[in-house]
Amino acid sequence: MKIALAQFNPTVADLLGNARRTVELAQEAANMGAELVVFPELSIVGYSPHDLFDNAHFVEATEFAVRWVHEHIPEGIGVLVGAPVRNPQPHGKRLHNAAILLESGCEPVVTHKMLLPTYDIYDEDRYFEPAGEQLAIDFHGVRLGVHICEDMWNLAEFSTYHTYERDPIAELVSQGVDLLINLSASPFAHGRHETRTEIISQICKTYHMPFVLVNLVGANTELIFDGDSRVHGADGQIQAMAPSFEEALVLWDSDDPSTLATDEHDRASDLYQALVFGIRDYVEKTGAFERVLVGLSGGIDSAVTATLAVDALGAENVIGITMPSVYSTAGSVDDSLTLAENLGIICHTVPILDAVNAFGTTLSGLFDGTREGIAEENIQARSRGIILMAASNKFGHMVLSTGNKSEMAMGYATLYGDMSGGLAVLADVFKSDVYSLAEYINTLAKTDRIPRPTIEKAPSAELRPNQKDEDSLPPYPVLDEILCCYIESRMDVDDIVRKTGHDPLLVQGILDAVDRNEYKRKQAPPALRVSDKAFGIGRRMPIVARYGRNDIRKMMEDFHQGMES
Amino acid sequence: MKIALAQFNPTVADLLGNARRTVELAQEAANMGAELVVFPELSIVGYSPHDLFDNAHFVEATEFAVRWVHEHIPEGIGVLVGAPVRNPQPHGKRLHNAAILLESGCEPVVTHKMLLPTYDIYDEDRYFEPAGEQLAIDFHGVRLGVHICEDMWNLAEFSTYHTYERDPIAELVSQGVDLLINLSASPFAHGRHETRTEIISQICKTYHMPFVLVNLVGANTELIFDGDSRVHGADGQIQAMAPSFEEALVLWDSDDPSTLATDEHDRASDLYQALVFGIRDYVEKTGAFERVLVGLSGGIDSAVTATLAVDALGAENVIGITMPSVYSTAGSVDDSLTLAENLGIICHTVPILDAVNAFGTTLSGLFDGTREGIAEENIQARSRGIILMAASNKFGHMVLSTGNKSEMAMGYATLYGDMSGGLAVLADVFKSDVYSLAEYINTLAKTDRIPRPTIEKAPSAELRPNQKDEDSLPPYPVLDEILCCYIESRMDVDDIVRKTGHDPLLVQGILDAVDRNEYKRKQAPPALRVSDKAFGIGRRMPIVARYGRNDIRKMMEDFHQGMES
Repeated sequence: MKIALAQFNPTVADLLGNARRTVELAQEAANMGAELVVFPELSIVGYSPHDLFDNAHFVEATEFAVRWVHEHIPEGIGVLVGAPVRNPQPHGKRLHNAAILLESGCEPVVTHKMLLPTYDIYDEDRYFEPAGEQLAIDFHGVRLGVHICEDMWNLAEFSTYHTYERDPIAELVSQGVDLLINLSASPFAHGRHETRTEIISQICKTYHMPFVLVNLVGANTELIFDGDSRVHGADGQIQAMAPSFEEALVLWDSDDPSTLATDEHDRASDLYQALVFGIRDYVEKTGAFERVLVGLSGGIDSAVTATLAVDALGAENVIGITMPSVYSTAGSVDDSLTLAENLGIICHTVPILDAVNAFGTTLSGLFDGTREGIAEENIQARSRGIILMAASNKFGHMVLSTGNKSEMAMGYATLYGDMSGGLAVLADVFKSDVYSLAEYINTLAKTDRIPRPTIEKAPSAELRPNQKDEDSLPPYPVLDEILCCYIESRMDVDDIVRKTGHDPLLVQGILDAVDRNEYKRKQAPPALRVSDKAFGIGRRMPIVARYGRNDIRKMMEDFHQGMES
Repeated sequence: MKIALAQFNPTVADLLGNARRTVELAQEAANMGAELVVFPELSIVGYSPHDLFDNAHFVEATEFAVRWVHEHIPEGIGVLVGAPVRNPQPHGKRLHNAAILLESGCEPVVTHKMLLPTYDIYDEDRYFEPAGEQLAIDFHGVRLGVHICEDMWNLAEFSTYHTYERDPIAELVSQGVDLLINLSASPFAHGRHETRTEIISQICKTYHMPFVLVNLVGANTELIFDGDSRVHGADGQIQAMAPSFEEALVLWDSDDPSTLATDEHDRASDLYQALVFGIRDYVEKTGAFERVLVGLSGGIDSAVTATLAVDALGAENVIGITMPSVYSTAGSVDDSLTLAENLGIICHTVPILDAVNAFGTTLSGLFDGTREGIAEENIQARSRGIILMAASNKFGHMVLSTGNKSEMAMGYATLYGDMSGGLAVLADVFKSDVYSLAEYINTLAKTDRIPRPTIEKAPSAELRPNQKDEDSLPPYPVLDEILCCYIESRMDVDDIVRKTGHDPLLVQGILDAVDRNEYKRKQAPPALRVSDKAFGIGRRMPIVARYGRNDIRKMMEDFHQGMES
């Protein structure tokens, strides 16, 4: 059987647009000779409409969109789409997360997702009732084991948060299926490509069964779906593979398979592609902006952000603004101008001196007798924020914010200042990875698009004379290692000290700083997610809270010593 | 049996502080002669530590805190606390949401929550595995039907999002319990007091059984828990009632009950108390600020916010800043100064003219040839934001933002301008309710604390000459009615038109404006929640999305007409 993998890029909630594109892709698949075309999870609504699922009109409109697709698909091809369907039972959540097999002139065949992820970025128990049973689907003489995303992720070693009692794959296999087909909405994160390969190969080899994975592609607010759709043969070898980070239609013939070499994915290259794609899709799908603004400081974060934006949108759609203050070094301005020249973008110079002085005068009465400090530093950062946002409002361009994950973790950023923007490009990228990205970009271009001085100078916010990041923060390699243990691996002080050998007081201080700055991140723009644990909807932490981890550890030690003595 | 209701106000994640206060309250209850003291749901950790539940150290520390409480409670009294416990099964979520009965010298008795709310503000399926069974607890010859919060809310008429198949109350009653005891963390919303009375009375009358409800009190970031703990007799009548919005310990004697008159709750009075309590608890629990700053515009929102802050924190801890521009009327400044005098607060006057002019000069090159508009208006709002935040940084005070729910819904607010702040006091209060609050405040004071001109003048952002809110927005009573249907009742255009009789285009335009402004609300400060559906963690909407509700409705109509013709 010839099966087409429709690695589709829907826009969230754009039911008509998604329905029309589904029909187009189905027609293309039919033209290619496919008997079956498989779309990703929730392909009709995108991932995810979130609480639009609670809107009765939206659910009704979705049902209509599926019906409309059914009426318009070409004859002779099965079209497997993802959509919510109503739960007919009197109890439980109102919807199921379903795969629906549509074929012209036939009744739709519906199967439900059994394992509903409710952790990290996933809220599926919020909307969906799990499948009570997994039923194989007979289609043109082939018995298909259709299931949805998480249904294949029931392996203890990948179950960070919990394990599931049921195994939908095993339940399908026990019904004598010929082929497993997974409709996914599985977002990109470092290493995810390799993990998918590993899991699917293992499933194929366990059951001697080919496996078709069709994953969503596209960026939706924070989430970047990479596609990475593929077919593995019964021996676990890859037989077909879609390109990452783009819409694609790939044909696989079960009767004439050929083995592909496993393609290599590289961390910096994946990261680069994910971010470029994330920027492009955000701008295209919102449709509210054609161009973006980046405040250029001469530092590496803004340089990398601007470069990614150019590669996403074209140089003509990226505008740099450099906003020097009295603390900006001549080098910083020069580096920004060199970068703009390298990228071929317009760069405006708008000094903040007058605005900062005006605030100084205006506040001189109120601040009389106080010492210069954070307040004055933040006035600079916020004056830059006002200038960027004024240009955004005036010309209808979107501001990209440039802070990285290390800074966002530590609160080393100014709310309403450099944190201003519609999209935070690097807020899930540790500083160490920002350096790797810069080097990757220059290597790819075979020239220093990002100026060497920008990469080589010591990072500085330049808000006071001779300021360096390392005056306030540990060296970035140390900081990033500790942050990664805390945020991505959810380790606490003792485990981190044991693993990294760093000073317990240093580790404790970093963890406390991360906790203390939840209030800042609460008001940050959405950040492109590229790790397994990003700030944003996937990491929900209390703001008003007092986790005295040091006090309670001490008390536990005292208590246990008291018990022993 | 004498039972004490410990309407406790824990701080989220403050395990030691909460454990110590638990022991203090248990001692007080013992001194009052109680044999059993009941604490609210998750009393040891507060509601909710959110993803701290994913931190193994936090779980271990919680277990220690419970053990510490057990070691320190007085003899002869049972102490029923709420805490997470580990799920011993190999499958499912790692934790249960548990009630634990502690008694000196006895093994703890643990029972788990069966119905886990996962909708609106609740994410319990994210962390907890539901109870497999509900077991009655025998204590001093009485059989207790202990259950947790949602376990009592399984009535079809209160199941907006879904219904549950199991009924924990019925399962407990079938085991011959003498008494139902509910540990709750049920937040305040308009009408919640009456709903609780209705549900509990119904349960009591159905099963001829007394019912003890102990609900959390305290404000944690967005959520305000009102307490409202009570005991209903087997006839459904209220026999004991704790005061709302304060910590309390109330004794009830099952052998000597007396019926209380049902107390009256009034919408404006509840709202006033909730917001005052919400401000106070935010400031006390964060511990980072003693004082708050409010930008006073002469308008009703800032006047009500400042008054609530004074009533929460005392006049000495509230500082007003009035920041007139060339578009501010003399009346606005005078009204702010009158308000400050009425409230007895300091009010600084910091004109924004110099800063606005400086930005004008600085941006004159970039903006050459453009017309004045939103960009220039927002520079004013953002200059005020900078001044407030500069004062915040300089003196260590927190900024309260003042926007109401109607404005936040429509995006009628400036990001990084008037939306700046650590806590949004009125962002879940429709403009119509802000007026009611102002009148309530003046009635309570028997004088116009909030100046009459502030209440009576037409609302205006004063960002351009003679600007009025109603130039851009429908009249507030109309707007609020439509917004309430959309946001709180999750109705869509057709239903709203049918219910309210307003023009479909007006309704459509308002719903689209709400959708379009998700990006602004994403970056808003946390807002005190007082309704059943507030912006914030309880309403999760996509930002990058395209819900063409009008197009799809039209297409549905055409399609159905085509089918019929």
